[in-house]
Amino acid sequence: MTYSVHINIMPLKELLDPQGKAVLGGLNNLGLGSVEDVRIGKHITLQVDAASKEEAGKIAEEATKKLLANAVMESYEISID
Amino acid sequence: MTYSVHINIMPLKELLDPQGKAVLGGLNNLGLGSVEDVRIGKHITLQVDAASKEEAGKIAEEATKKLLANAVMESYEISID
Repeated sequence: MTYSVHINIMPLKELLDPQGKAVLGGLNNLGLGSVEDVRIGKHITLQVDAASKEEAGKIAEEATKKLLANAVMESYEISID
Repeated sequence: MTYSVHINIMPLKELLDPQGKAVLGGLNNLGLGSVEDVRIGKHITLQVDAASKEEAGKIAEEATKKLLANAVMESYEISID
């Protein structure tokens, strides 16, 4: 069966996010001053062929650790439909 | 009150996603052949100061339309904690 796996990868809270800071400045210049902070990461969807949801989760975890996320700078969350 | 707003911005289904295709090739080369498709978009979190959840949602919607997403190429989903 094919599972849809959603992965959110975000810069660690302890680190500066220059892209987010730039977007925050842009939003404030557009008159959206009530936006106080912006952080920008990646949203990745995988279609995984697996026998069970657990197996799909393991494959997604392996993919995230090996290639998708950089553990030094990023945290990730995995959810499976 | 400050609301955390999460926005997922993804390339439209009808469009090619070259970044996703490159990552799919990489995962298959790493032995993760059961991953059949990859699409890559952005995950953005905003901290929005608003009187209500509805107002925070409206501000996030405006920010997304004005700056964050390109409606020609991308679709978006907004959720609020």
